[in-house]
Amino acid sequence: MKLKRTHYIGELDNTFIGKEIIISGWVLRRRDHGGVIFLDVRDRTGLLQVVFEEGIDPEIHNLADSIRIEYVISVKGLIRRRPPGMENPKIPTGEIELVAKEVEILNISKTPPFPMDEDLSEISEAIRLKYRYLEMRALDGLKPFIFRHKVNQIIREFLNSKGFLEIETPFLTKSTPEGARDYLVPSRLYPGKFYALPQSPQLFKQILMVAGVDKYYQIVRCFRDEDLRADRQPEFTQLDIEMSFVEENDVMSIVEELLAYLFEKALNITLETPFPRLSYETALRDYGTDRPDIRFDMKLKDLSHLFRETTFKVFRDALESGGIIKGLKVPANFSRKELDELTKFAQELGAKGLAWIKYNKNASSFEEKWSSPIVKFFEISILEKLEEVFNPLEDLATFFFVADKEDVVNSVLSELRIHLAKKINLVPENKFNFVWITDFPLFEWDEEENRLVSVHHPFTHPKEEDIPLLDTDPLKVKSKAYDIVLNGVEIGGGSIRIHKRELQEKIFKLLNIPLEEAQEKFGFLLTALEYGAPPHGGIAFGLDRLIMLMLGKKSIREVIPFPKTQRAQCLLTGAPSEVKIEQILELHLLPGWKKDKT
Amino acid sequence: MKLKRTHYIGELDNTFIGKEIIISGWVLRRRDHGGVIFLDVRDRTGLLQVVFEEGIDPEIHNLADSIRIEYVISVKGLIRRRPPGMENPKIPTGEIELVAKEVEILNISKTPPFPMDEDLSEISEAIRLKYRYLEMRALDGLKPFIFRHKVNQIIREFLNSKGFLEIETPFLTKSTPEGARDYLVPSRLYPGKFYALPQSPQLFKQILMVAGVDKYYQIVRCFRDEDLRADRQPEFTQLDIEMSFVEENDVMSIVEELLAYLFEKALNITLETPFPRLSYETALRDYGTDRPDIRFDMKLKDLSHLFRETTFKVFRDALESGGIIKGLKVPANFSRKELDELTKFAQELGAKGLAWIKYNKNASSFEEKWSSPIVKFFEISILEKLEEVFNPLEDLATFFFVADKEDVVNSVLSELRIHLAKKINLVPENKFNFVWITDFPLFEWDEEENRLVSVHHPFTHPKEEDIPLLDTDPLKVKSKAYDIVLNGVEIGGGSIRIHKRELQEKIFKLLNIPLEEAQEKFGFLLTALEYGAPPHGGIAFGLDRLIMLMLGKKSIREVIPFPKTQRAQCLLTGAPSEVKIEQILELHLLPGWKKDKT
Repeated sequence: MKLKRTHYIGELDNTFIGKEIIISGWVLRRRDHGGVIFLDVRDRTGLLQVVFEEGIDPEIHNLADSIRIEYVISVKGLIRRRPPGMENPKIPTGEIELVAKEVEILNISKTPPFPMDEDLSEISEAIRLKYRYLEMRALDGLKPFIFRHKVNQIIREFLNSKGFLEIETPFLTKSTPEGARDYLVPSRLYPGKFYALPQSPQLFKQILMVAGVDKYYQIVRCFRDEDLRADRQPEFTQLDIEMSFVEENDVMSIVEELLAYLFEKALNITLETPFPRLSYETALRDYGTDRPDIRFDMKLKDLSHLFRETTFKVFRDALESGGIIKGLKVPANFSRKELDELTKFAQELGAKGLAWIKYNKNASSFEEKWSSPIVKFFEISILEKLEEVFNPLEDLATFFFVADKEDVVNSVLSELRIHLAKKINLVPENKFNFVWITDFPLFEWDEEENRLVSVHHPFTHPKEEDIPLLDTDPLKVKSKAYDIVLNGVEIGGGSIRIHKRELQEKIFKLLNIPLEEAQEKFGFLLTALEYGAPPHGGIAFGLDRLIMLMLGKKSIREVIPFPKTQRAQCLLTGAPSEVKIEQILELHLLPGWKKDKT
Repeated sequence: MKLKRTHYIGELDNTFIGKEIIISGWVLRRRDHGGVIFLDVRDRTGLLQVVFEEGIDPEIHNLADSIRIEYVISVKGLIRRRPPGMENPKIPTGEIELVAKEVEILNISKTPPFPMDEDLSEISEAIRLKYRYLEMRALDGLKPFIFRHKVNQIIREFLNSKGFLEIETPFLTKSTPEGARDYLVPSRLYPGKFYALPQSPQLFKQILMVAGVDKYYQIVRCFRDEDLRADRQPEFTQLDIEMSFVEENDVMSIVEELLAYLFEKALNITLETPFPRLSYETALRDYGTDRPDIRFDMKLKDLSHLFRETTFKVFRDALESGGIIKGLKVPANFSRKELDELTKFAQELGAKGLAWIKYNKNASSFEEKWSSPIVKFFEISILEKLEEVFNPLEDLATFFFVADKEDVVNSVLSELRIHLAKKINLVPENKFNFVWITDFPLFEWDEEENRLVSVHHPFTHPKEEDIPLLDTDPLKVKSKAYDIVLNGVEIGGGSIRIHKRELQEKIFKLLNIPLEEAQEKFGFLLTALEYGAPPHGGIAFGLDRLIMLMLGKKSIREVIPFPKTQRAQCLLTGAPSEVKIEQILELHLLPGWKKDKT
């Protein structure tokens, strides 16, 4: 480099007028006005107009003339005030420009596959991921990653100030397939043995509590070889926290403090703490989900009791076969076409159908007030009770009903609730509503495996008062677990952990994990629990997801620098890829794949 | 927990006298003096004496009486001044004690496999690693990790203040086996394809420069499936740095500034900057190695010229077969037994023998002044020249000589130099001498592969002035690479990278990598270089190694929370381990191992 950068563009302002500087960067735009060449040059920090004037050395002019979009250049010149009327108030350097004296082309560039100075959201994601470096270099392309950098720093700053220690845990660790599927790493030195990439540092952070660390955190990559539905990634980043001598409230308070600090510092938004708390039961009752979006109300109502005596066959059948009926009131009316679409939406979610009643409070006739094909099945007293249940009622409203098994009713209506709220613009922008979900059941019954499985993980501590129920009615046992939900998205979860071997063994037994298997998989934890394990608990955040929500992005891929596709491929590097057969044999493995599976 | 901690022990001092507090922690020691029970209780922050006095509630006394070493307890009580004469000036809480009112046993503990209040360096590492959590909880056991936490924070603080962005790169990436052996991760979705764990984020950080990030860093885990000689780990942590629009000096300066900041903040040690720089050639000439320990002088001298005419067969033979003779002067005399041992040491390192001359400046006779079986072969003028070469000479000294091929001479004498310096206590304690090694050759010749290979990696930029030599004499080409060495240990290395596709392709060609293979492996980088890649360069530090040296530890295992053994095993969890056959089949792999290899 002949021309060494003296300043970042972001440093420049009117105080530089008259000064000679050198900038380096990329050419975003070029214009040629009768021999005068204008280049808009940018670096990470800003954008500056560079002018090659008419009188300039012809050699330099020719060089400048050869410069194209995205060339990498250094320019030496004098900062001057732009001529009157030529200012650009949209950029911080809009009142100045650089009059070039010398220019050096540091690298040329092919024409990018998409424009670099426009919104790229219309460009296919496949192209953007393949040329991720160009997407990042495009205007505002680095913003999510600069923000992410900031978020990491703020989180660390807070946790450091609270005495948390950042401690690194292994990536090549032991496969303990209780939970999602592990990514495996074959061992070369031990034929037939494998490391596993961590799904989370759960066991290590518990070990660190036994080690007396007291307060631990880590911003750490985790791995799950799952079938990639929805917005998931094979590798994702977790903010992992663990504390000793704590109860649920201690963890929840520090998290609230952390998030309030983060939102204040990163977004200048003041969060109200403590966050509301909903029991798992209440969340399911009122929202049909343990990930409720509480930015708007529209709670579900259990109407089973109300419709107990109805002659409407659909409702009666559902109730008689042990199901329930829940309803939802939306403060709007819909066209017949819309109602048909909503019915289809509900059916796609697994409902047999969707019943609805259009309501017009001030209508003069019954038919206009209660408009629906199913009204005829209901006595007026039932409709009046409906008015009561959904009180206060807007002038216009629509009631939706789903009658089915409880889990179907809940999953359909919870999705419908979100869908309808978006449809009628009931979801406020730029609002961040956190809610804790607590009092989860410790176990649920897995039909497929025909055994109890952990709702969170097998190290979750049961509520003290429910411990006797472990022997009598384990499905009734509640746990010391808590999830944190932001705007309807689960962004974190944690629990108080079991810290005594005896109880941990009992849980394994209830999960139908033979002691021998438990010993083989988790023996090191069981042993550690015998050597003075303190009471402890913690939480883990999906950091990608949190940052996505903070930025109002639609996908975590927007906030991960080099994400994989929904099919677990890296479009930039082409991973996963074939390797040499020698590499496979060295791992004592034989290729056994059928090519047609590819 | 009935007794919730109100204070960490480290917070307590004389100002707490008379106050009621609750502490939680582990029992380090217990003593019973005629019914009065003393417990030394510790948490991460300190140690406090707890007293259960005679008059206490018998129930509490009985509970206290049942408490054993490493039990986890909470104690509520009153802080009071210790009785005169009972103070312990060795600990910060030595003037106070906690008079217990209540106690809660939070967990019991088996007797630990080693003492918790003594130096554990005599305990076998295998036991310590198996019970790593107890080693950490033992007195001072967490110190290395608290220090490591601090180092991470200081590094980030510095780099953030300089505008570096912390950006995360993928762990599941593409196998590019140029360098060490990759750890592979079989893909479940793509039979026959594999991810590889990164040996370093090299390609991604270069891509980030093309993306306009300008300044990047990451504290990141890296993986190498190497044969684990010496003090290496399958996974290790790297401080990874990359910058755009820079030359060698820019990277070296910011690193010097970073290290000076780190040593000042973490160790209160002022480093002198800039660090000395040695060319690769000079380092080999003067120290026989590119990792010289410059805490002491004792340079090697090339004596080939001096001994050109000698009749001493060993020297003559070496010279005649194209070898060299180098010598080392040590300011001490050694016994015949010591000299025999040193000869053996040299032979184990690959020398045919070790010639030596004992020197006594003030001796009255020639035989006393020059004492050695080989002196008879040398004319007095040669010995006088030897005095000149090693001027200034101490009263007593010993010269050592190795005659052999250049690389044997260098490797033997460089090791001997360290060995002798330690032997005569010439290596100062607590001194941190950094040195840059520069001007490395770009290539070396690999006899085995019968081709040029990169001394650093294939992305290293050649010196501008040597680029013409690529076509004519590539082994003469020097690179823009630099290593940083601390006290004889390489702790980091980096380079200016190639930023133009044409040059990168030329290098691949010289490395005998067919364009098709280069395209297949590194195509994404080659493509990125076509879209406005800026000049860029960086460095990577072995953070484990740096922290080890800062703490004066002998092994990186001492500063890694959960290290693997030299044989790549985790003694805590037992990784790597066997997995279910279903897991292997799901990855489209067939077990092909021979059990006897285990």
